[in-house]
Amino acid sequence: MPTVIQPSDQEVPLSARLKAVLDGDFADARDAARQFIARPAMAPVAPDTPKEEYREKTLGWIKDMIAAGFTRMPYDPAYGGTGEREKYMNIVEVIAHQDMSLAVKQGVQFGLFGMSIESLGTEKHHAKYLPDVMSGKLLGGFAMTEVSGGSDVQGISTEAIYDHKTRSFTLTTPNEGARKAYIGNAAKHGEMMVVFAQLKMGESGENMGVHAFMVPIRDKDGKTKPGVTIDDCGHKVGLNGIDNGYLAFDKVTVPYEAMLDRFAQIDDAGTYQSEIKKKSQRFFKMIGTLVTGRVFVSMVALSGAKNALTTAVDHAENRKVFGETLMDKQATQSRLLPHLANTYALHFMTRHLMDEYGKGNEYLETMAAAVKAKSSDSAMKVVDEARMLAGGAGYMSEQRHGALRADMDVFRTFEGDNTVLRMLVAKNQLSRLSHKFKAATGVQKVTRIAALKMKSLFGRFNAESGKTDPAHFIDPAFQNKIFALRERSMIYALSSKLVKIAKAENADVAANKCQNDMIAYADAYAERLMMQKFIKAVNAQKDPEVKALLKDVCDLYAVQTMRQNGLWYVENGLMKPQTTTALRRLERHLTEKIRPHAKTLVAAFDIPPSVLTCIPAPAVPPAPPKQNGP
Amino acid sequence: MPTVIQPSDQEVPLSARLKAVLDGDFADARDAARQFIARPAMAPVAPDTPKEEYREKTLGWIKDMIAAGFTRMPYDPAYGGTGEREKYMNIVEVIAHQDMSLAVKQGVQFGLFGMSIESLGTEKHHAKYLPDVMSGKLLGGFAMTEVSGGSDVQGISTEAIYDHKTRSFTLTTPNEGARKAYIGNAAKHGEMMVVFAQLKMGESGENMGVHAFMVPIRDKDGKTKPGVTIDDCGHKVGLNGIDNGYLAFDKVTVPYEAMLDRFAQIDDAGTYQSEIKKKSQRFFKMIGTLVTGRVFVSMVALSGAKNALTTAVDHAENRKVFGETLMDKQATQSRLLPHLANTYALHFMTRHLMDEYGKGNEYLETMAAAVKAKSSDSAMKVVDEARMLAGGAGYMSEQRHGALRADMDVFRTFEGDNTVLRMLVAKNQLSRLSHKFKAATGVQKVTRIAALKMKSLFGRFNAESGKTDPAHFIDPAFQNKIFALRERSMIYALSSKLVKIAKAENADVAANKCQNDMIAYADAYAERLMMQKFIKAVNAQKDPEVKALLKDVCDLYAVQTMRQNGLWYVENGLMKPQTTTALRRLERHLTEKIRPHAKTLVAAFDIPPSVLTCIPAPAVPPAPPKQNGP
Repeated sequence: MPTVIQPSDQEVPLSARLKAVLDGDFADARDAARQFIARPAMAPVAPDTPKEEYREKTLGWIKDMIAAGFTRMPYDPAYGGTGEREKYMNIVEVIAHQDMSLAVKQGVQFGLFGMSIESLGTEKHHAKYLPDVMSGKLLGGFAMTEVSGGSDVQGISTEAIYDHKTRSFTLTTPNEGARKAYIGNAAKHGEMMVVFAQLKMGESGENMGVHAFMVPIRDKDGKTKPGVTIDDCGHKVGLNGIDNGYLAFDKVTVPYEAMLDRFAQIDDAGTYQSEIKKKSQRFFKMIGTLVTGRVFVSMVALSGAKNALTTAVDHAENRKVFGETLMDKQATQSRLLPHLANTYALHFMTRHLMDEYGKGNEYLETMAAAVKAKSSDSAMKVVDEARMLAGGAGYMSEQRHGALRADMDVFRTFEGDNTVLRMLVAKNQLSRLSHKFKAATGVQKVTRIAALKMKSLFGRFNAESGKTDPAHFIDPAFQNKIFALRERSMIYALSSKLVKIAKAENADVAANKCQNDMIAYADAYAERLMMQKFIKAVNAQKDPEVKALLKDVCDLYAVQTMRQNGLWYVENGLMKPQTTTALRRLERHLTEKIRPHAKTLVAAFDIPPSVLTCIPAPAVPPAPPKQNGP
Repeated sequence: MPTVIQPSDQEVPLSARLKAVLDGDFADARDAARQFIARPAMAPVAPDTPKEEYREKTLGWIKDMIAAGFTRMPYDPAYGGTGEREKYMNIVEVIAHQDMSLAVKQGVQFGLFGMSIESLGTEKHHAKYLPDVMSGKLLGGFAMTEVSGGSDVQGISTEAIYDHKTRSFTLTTPNEGARKAYIGNAAKHGEMMVVFAQLKMGESGENMGVHAFMVPIRDKDGKTKPGVTIDDCGHKVGLNGIDNGYLAFDKVTVPYEAMLDRFAQIDDAGTYQSEIKKKSQRFFKMIGTLVTGRVFVSMVALSGAKNALTTAVDHAENRKVFGETLMDKQATQSRLLPHLANTYALHFMTRHLMDEYGKGNEYLETMAAAVKAKSSDSAMKVVDEARMLAGGAGYMSEQRHGALRADMDVFRTFEGDNTVLRMLVAKNQLSRLSHKFKAATGVQKVTRIAALKMKSLFGRFNAESGKTDPAHFIDPAFQNKIFALRERSMIYALSSKLVKIAKAENADVAANKCQNDMIAYADAYAERLMMQKFIKAVNAQKDPEVKALLKDVCDLYAVQTMRQNGLWYVENGLMKPQTTTALRRLERHLTEKIRPHAKTLVAAFDIPPSVLTCIPAPAVPPAPPKQNGP
């Protein structure tokens, strides 16, 4: 295990000191994970590996993770875990550099499956299942999404009918659209699923809402259980190391104990009990587990972006075009370095999400949703840009750009579609805001309060709107202020618009007519958080060289984001046209300033070179020579 | 063959009348191509088809195209062709809906290979090769790009040394970086290549610049020719139906007749002759053939975008989310319909490129470069958006989104990297502009003239900068004017900036410091052309219903483009903040106005449904049941 580098140690190279900052408290664990993925057995798969072979390879890597002792980390020591969830997340973030299917498959097994049992189940479930989950003896998955349901998970159609006589539940898929869809570990490896279904009481027929049940789908010998139909999702755009499948249930009966009954129980008299009275509140409490998934996606998407940035900077520094180095070209710098700054911003943001984990931060769900959308979108753009920058070479599969893009594509969809998540962010924030308005539900009152709030925000800012001095834009106080101002004024404007349209038409029309504003708001919210956390990270540095470099990267994040939102600032009177022009100049200046450090900034990611490319599969035996031409 | 629909015939559905407009003069040929690709033999390949199998399948389709008589169309009747190049391009544009590998492989064989022989060779080459090229008896390719060279094609390193004693050329690859790279038809099917190399005169060693040579690389029986080394590029991000390869030459000797000698000859005395005196002028004349490739890419990229739009609109119209149709959501409309309008704009633009083909339009090279970059970038965004919109289902390979994105990715790189092409556009236009400045090469003079030109342009516009009336924005005269104003003022500003930096530092520094401006200019240039051609297309309509719908689509293109460039307009004083706010409102209004016609607009593309999805390959026999868990 390499010695932990102290950020203040001036003897070591800047990239190593920066790496220590990025690795934070988990430097040892992350280095162990780096050694783990650098082993020859973990060379990235050839891109044309048949999916059957890839699936088995991924399962083998899961077993390696188990053997390395990683997979006990997220669980309670009472059941054989080591209670180090944050450490485990850091390890997985590093493992994602090597293979996204592995990162996601472990997420299905140890996150979605195991964590559902831990957080939705009770002691009996923990004792019975958790040891086998972390040892891999019991492979499983998380069966929530349905074909027709999509993002509307509360509206799923799978039914679990409770029969008190036999004290059992009978699960049924009422129609084709109710089949569970895209379920990881379903097509091949999973033995048991956490199945989400509408719980209906047999006697009364009353629907108690969505509940989760432990449902065996296969025998130990791989035979599908009676009443269960499993279909393979087949080849996918990416992540072909995972065996996604469709599941249907035809009167599959499970005992009472199959219900994960932490938040609701059925007593011996057959009466449904729950401390949470409202059906939808119960539902949202239950799917709180999804927050983990969103933090996870935010992190592993960044891992992919870091691979792409490392490869792209390396390419640009070595490639000569028309006699010059590609990295020296203005266009290249503008294509790569703002993305690099943005990736750093997201890195510090995801550290914050993890820090807040388990502290009961009431904003965690909202933050995770906003950051997941931002991180996955951003990572896709980075990988795409790296592919293009590498020209023809980037189109060869031995560069991993194509595979990474295909794998990471789905990060924008699963664990919550990014568009739906952005609307969730806005809805959550609007709902918080409504507390501020208190009794002021009338249109006039809401719009008046919103107008007053905005006037007060803008008024304090007015004098600064025409400033074009670079020192002004890189002042952290200004940065925090203008990002917060944008976010807050957008939510006030949104609340005003919503109540106005709702009064003139109705609430549904209002919600629909504000979708684009809600989406824009969610990004402003994420950007404000990223700005705050980046500034905090810069301030925390002791090493002057590290601090100075991070400050420039932080400023490039700040300035590019302000420039991208320039029209909004101008339209809202918060910037003058000369201000946005000055921002563009400053963005260019900061890009040039960072350019000599491009190598250092990607070296700090410290990705084992062996996982940056993949060796093509051995060629198939050549076909017998044949006559050319038709 | 279906009857051609008259655009004025009110009996037929609007979508059919619109289709007739889009198909234009080639309705019959395009319908024939639709029938061709709708055959069961042309069902799109399963996404996990091994590349060896896919390559043979693609070759089979090429033979089908030959058998259907299509491939004679682009050639001179003197050699067995039918002289219908534009018709052929229309057919290929339709075929691209089915398979991008096929579209590109035909482009390698009948475009790059055949057309190079036609345009760079002389009668002896035409007679000897063209009949076999169009009949597929002789399969070949175009070997220009080298590993180290990339976009710097004039700087390639492959050498062809002329020996007058034997009246022959000896081709050599001097180093690894000089290997010909990513050459279609090289790895498997090609028998002969048009190889680009530096011609050196044996006696004097003088380098006469890049010339093209017909070089056999394989025997008829598939055996590689002595001195030639062929390596397979292996698996690629996409286009795996094409056998791309690397080529190296170790003293490969070809007779004098192998030189494609239309623009330069070596006479019987061994003296090099060319009517074009300057080496680089000769080079640019020779690679003029690449213009065809760029028009081709512009068109087939659009075909892919049309597939994605058809699938996405169909999905959005049928998918229910939270009880409503996805297409009725504001966010969905905003994600799809502006792209649809942009695709229409590009459609009419590519028609213009084809119309100008062969008419000697001096702007064709510049236009094709700008439109190729715009079309390929735009198509990638459309396909990506369609993938996301389809949610989890869009990530399954049976939807073709993933395959289309992977295939079309390279359209942004080959036939000229989009960044390099955009700089080429700016350079060409700057060079034209320099004629206007005539002798005014001094910095002060250039900047003064530029400033005057801009003042005059802006002055005339000043009174309109604050207008927010929708009628104003949808006035075609205004649309043409403001798009042209932006383009012209950007080129004047660019010329001013270039001379200023060149004086203060030097011309190379200036060129580098203006890259971002050059790239932005190229898009403004393309947007101005697209605006003009769309307005012209609307004006040409007789059918009032077709005309009204196209006018709305045209306006949506105009308004979204103005809004996207809003900050530029504001910074340059051409719009007030209230103007861009009004544009955003109008964009929304137009999107809503077009929404009921979404189905009609994609139905007009008339893509056979059988090519919109692909059926997965038959499952491999299931592996024997095995114990789950590690």
